[in-house]
Amino acid sequence: MDIQALVRDLARKTDSKIVLLVMDGLGGLPIEPLGKSELEMAKKPNLDKLAKASVLGMADPVGRGITPGSGPGHLALFGYDPVKYLIGRGVLEALGIDFPLKHGDLAIRVNFCAVDDKGLVTDRRAGRISTELNAQLCAKLKAKVKISGAEYFLEPVKEHRAALVFRAPGLGDKINDTDPQVEGKPPLPMKAQDAAGEKTGKLAEQFMVQAREVLKDERPANMMLLRGFANFVKYPSFDEIYKLNACAIAQYPMYKGLARLVGMEVKEVGPELEDLFKCLEENWARHDFFFVHVKKTDSAGEDGDWARKVQVIEKVDKLIPRVTKLKPEVFIITGDHSTPSSMKAHSFHPVPVLISTELSRKDPTREFGEASCKLGGLGRFKMKYLMSLAMAYALKLEKYGA
Amino acid sequence: MDIQALVRDLARKTDSKIVLLVMDGLGGLPIEPLGKSELEMAKKPNLDKLAKASVLGMADPVGRGITPGSGPGHLALFGYDPVKYLIGRGVLEALGIDFPLKHGDLAIRVNFCAVDDKGLVTDRRAGRISTELNAQLCAKLKAKVKISGAEYFLEPVKEHRAALVFRAPGLGDKINDTDPQVEGKPPLPMKAQDAAGEKTGKLAEQFMVQAREVLKDERPANMMLLRGFANFVKYPSFDEIYKLNACAIAQYPMYKGLARLVGMEVKEVGPELEDLFKCLEENWARHDFFFVHVKKTDSAGEDGDWARKVQVIEKVDKLIPRVTKLKPEVFIITGDHSTPSSMKAHSFHPVPVLISTELSRKDPTREFGEASCKLGGLGRFKMKYLMSLAMAYALKLEKYGA
Repeated sequence: MDIQALVRDLARKTDSKIVLLVMDGLGGLPIEPLGKSELEMAKKPNLDKLAKASVLGMADPVGRGITPGSGPGHLALFGYDPVKYLIGRGVLEALGIDFPLKHGDLAIRVNFCAVDDKGLVTDRRAGRISTELNAQLCAKLKAKVKISGAEYFLEPVKEHRAALVFRAPGLGDKINDTDPQVEGKPPLPMKAQDAAGEKTGKLAEQFMVQAREVLKDERPANMMLLRGFANFVKYPSFDEIYKLNACAIAQYPMYKGLARLVGMEVKEVGPELEDLFKCLEENWARHDFFFVHVKKTDSAGEDGDWARKVQVIEKVDKLIPRVTKLKPEVFIITGDHSTPSSMKAHSFHPVPVLISTELSRKDPTREFGEASCKLGGLGRFKMKYLMSLAMAYALKLEKYGA
Repeated sequence: MDIQALVRDLARKTDSKIVLLVMDGLGGLPIEPLGKSELEMAKKPNLDKLAKASVLGMADPVGRGITPGSGPGHLALFGYDPVKYLIGRGVLEALGIDFPLKHGDLAIRVNFCAVDDKGLVTDRRAGRISTELNAQLCAKLKAKVKISGAEYFLEPVKEHRAALVFRAPGLGDKINDTDPQVEGKPPLPMKAQDAAGEKTGKLAEQFMVQAREVLKDERPANMMLLRGFANFVKYPSFDEIYKLNACAIAQYPMYKGLARLVGMEVKEVGPELEDLFKCLEENWARHDFFFVHVKKTDSAGEDGDWARKVQVIEKVDKLIPRVTKLKPEVFIITGDHSTPSSMKAHSFHPVPVLISTELSRKDPTREFGEASCKLGGLGRFKMKYLMSLAMAYALKLEKYGA
């Protein structure tokens, strides 16, 4: 079922407000010998109090057994089928640095690399050059490389990574990476699979011929590898689909980029956890949907530091009353995927979901955790249905059929 | 969502091992006055111990309310959408006798029947002739019937049933059965719905004209009815999709055939329950996926013999330690469908699933049974997702998207 198409037909503008608080990588696994997950171990009186008056559930971001990246994880949260709307890596890289992509742009990930006299790659990452050197190289390239037939943009990302964007009509992304994946080989020639890809290939070739010349005397980065060719397709916006005037409160570029992708207004926000909630309060009157993104639960999980993940959850818990005081009609707390600290990585395990609303059948649970969410009234569902639930609980959907 | 296409993109080869133990027709219904199913009534300390450290769930082989045959039931277990990959009855008949079908073959179920002087069917099954007589008739037909435009194969199955296979390019299966379904009527003429079906129809007509002549003096079977015309389409293999080197340990032709259909290596195995586990041990080093099939749970259910079904489960239970000693990363125990002994037939009830893995959120259950599976962490899911779960728990899937 294309739930988003259905919701689009039924959505209506009302005064009710929705807060979606995403704790990145929230789901966990039991930590032995305690047998409880990070979320279950945390002292979180406010979240537990909220859970008592909420409906809980478990959601699969993409599908059973599928471990999502941050892109698919967030698209699902925003109600976009993450299989239909797969974001290419080049696009994600450009979004990550807040590059203002336009519909039809062709985005490519760039690795600065090192090649020897014969043109064989000796270091695929050029010793992970500094971001400063990266920025200097990008500036030099932009000053010297001239492309005909398209506008181009080259922006440093971090260390050896940059983003290259071509803007012209009819560019395709069916074209291979030039990264040979191993050292001691030359960059791969670009081969397109269709006419649109060939058009992109010719632009990229023009670019590379000049870039090679510009970089030849640089050390250690005297060459570039191109990866993840991807078309940017404009997404239907939150306003178009949900009639929501959505606001994104996130501190990391990737998540701001994802929010911008679906037409949210991205706010400036300070670096502390508290700043997220301050920003929410300041913008409360001006929006009806708020996406608030907490990154550090995921970082702690990825580092395998369960104690730190517990601490982040506890810190968020202390800030929860600042949301409830605002009295949103719908307050959702969940994650974009699980990141069990025992696995030190994103995982395929479903994600706990809490929806606080006056209109729910309350669950007889005493806490917000994986075990209680498993038994919750929302049951087990695909995360792409979260937005239809949010809209429904906020009374923002008309009746379907007569 | 085409989960198999997604899994195919994400699958990677690793050293971890998966065991899929299928107890055919495992699911049951409560037996009064005890109120417990066959599985719940069985004394099964090993399965219950395993359940305590596992994640449980309930799976629908095809969909809610749909009673699956063995073909769809197993395809779903193997991750092939059983609605997309419906196996035609002719193909299933041929697979059931291990006939080596090739891509494009057209397989037909044959009933030997009796007709009177006017050609009206007097017995649609010719009094269920013996399999021996069936084999003699098939041999006689093969010696005398000559077909132009195709190779053909005719093999006895059991009693009055045989399999007829045509091998030629461009044969279609859109053609009706000749079985009139009632006695006192002549066999129906074959009418094809398209050109490919007509090509098949002409071959079948050629065959039937001669067969009628060959059989005319035979008693009681002097005619044949053709049913279940079906094309055999080569399936993408386990190796292609999952990068698994799969091994099938099954004692009955149908299940060997189904395993061969998806490219598993089918092992020779003795007739006893124990032989299945011996075969597993002997082949442990050479494969990374093992499909082990226990038939007798289903047979007992079909016979309405709940006590025998309980006994079979208890016997399997005693053999479980021989699997756990091998330390598979993922050990799955489930059925291909339910066969409640109170119904004496396959049923539409969902099937209990147990997944034993170190990466699961353990369920707080004390036993493996329908009631505990209903509350399990896997929730209720379509069986076609089982393989994505197996692959995920075995850490054989890359992350989806960045």
